[in-house]
Amino acid sequence: MCPKMSPVKIHPEILERRIVARSRLFAVEQLELRFSNGVERTYERLLTPPIPAVLVVPLIDPKTVLLIREYGAGVERYELGLPKGARSQGEGVIETANRELMEECGYGARTLEPLTELTLSPGYMGHRIVVVLAEDLYPQKIEGDEPEEIEVVPWPLADIDGLIAREDFSEARSLAALYMVRDRQRARGIDV
Amino acid sequence: MCPKMSPVKIHPEILERRIVARSRLFAVEQLELRFSNGVERTYERLLTPPIPAVLVVPLIDPKTVLLIREYGAGVERYELGLPKGARSQGEGVIETANRELMEECGYGARTLEPLTELTLSPGYMGHRIVVVLAEDLYPQKIEGDEPEEIEVVPWPLADIDGLIAREDFSEARSLAALYMVRDRQRARGIDV
Repeated sequence: MCPKMSPVKIHPEILERRIVARSRLFAVEQLELRFSNGVERTYERLLTPPIPAVLVVPLIDPKTVLLIREYGAGVERYELGLPKGARSQGEGVIETANRELMEECGYGARTLEPLTELTLSPGYMGHRIVVVLAEDLYPQKIEGDEPEEIEVVPWPLADIDGLIAREDFSEARSLAALYMVRDRQRARGIDV
Repeated sequence: MCPKMSPVKIHPEILERRIVARSRLFAVEQLELRFSNGVERTYERLLTPPIPAVLVVPLIDPKTVLLIREYGAGVERYELGLPKGARSQGEGVIETANRELMEECGYGARTLEPLTELTLSPGYMGHRIVVVLAEDLYPQKIEGDEPEEIEVVPWPLADIDGLIAREDFSEARSLAALYMVRDRQRARGIDV
């Protein structure tokens, strides 16, 4: 704990909020904020999905993670990353993690453990994703809504540097989750 | 390099693109895609800023990073994270990094080195951010456009776990960049 950090900070007051743009998947909300020092500002942010999504770190063995290679319409190229997806209505985090793993990697997991929750860009997105470690995998494929078959790519946890060096790996959430799991395996005495 | 990974993958054809929603800061683009297997899908993505933003990892000493504590309108709370910002017109990556560091932390850096580029959510955002390591700091404050003074919080690189455990630290890009710099310091023989 840092001694310089003030324990309490008064949140800005939200004076007004309204939707200023909307599409099928996205909505933009405009906020009028008054900070505790009296300064007023207009912010825009994306409307946040009601529940966090799920990001899975599937270990096919204690030293090897399964990545997927999927087309990213945002970056207009195929990208390596971890399997992930939104929770369906009434579905729990562990259930979503196992479903996405079966759909995207063709495996189920006997052991699933939520590790932490990550945000994308707290300044203008409330989007959250729960990182779930999946172990003790067994082959189990279910059909998802993917437009084409997803390629599954085993990758050594010891070689995160090699992944960063690739042009088709860039997603911060996947990278953060991989470091976290690698550290965890090292703490368990596994040489990765 | 994984032997199972196919070297070439034919990108989907973009049949049509149009803006379906727009606000002051955001725009949503709808894409009609035809995958190489003939399947057609409609995607939505955020319009991407023309140039990458910059994320700074400022080391006040070889074992300590400077975090900032700033209100995140997306998550409606104060969040710890690394200083970052968009590049101004004609501004280079290193220049932006040093400017943001002066505005948000009150330091300039004599050594600035781009490490890698991260994306936010490749599926529906093209947004990119360059991670810049800043070292050899010296006090230098310039005024930014922040609505209130930003709190600067020194944090030991050795205690990433302590940061993850906090409720006010969650941003995947900051976390990925911190792991990356910690690994780099360890590779230099620094005990963090």
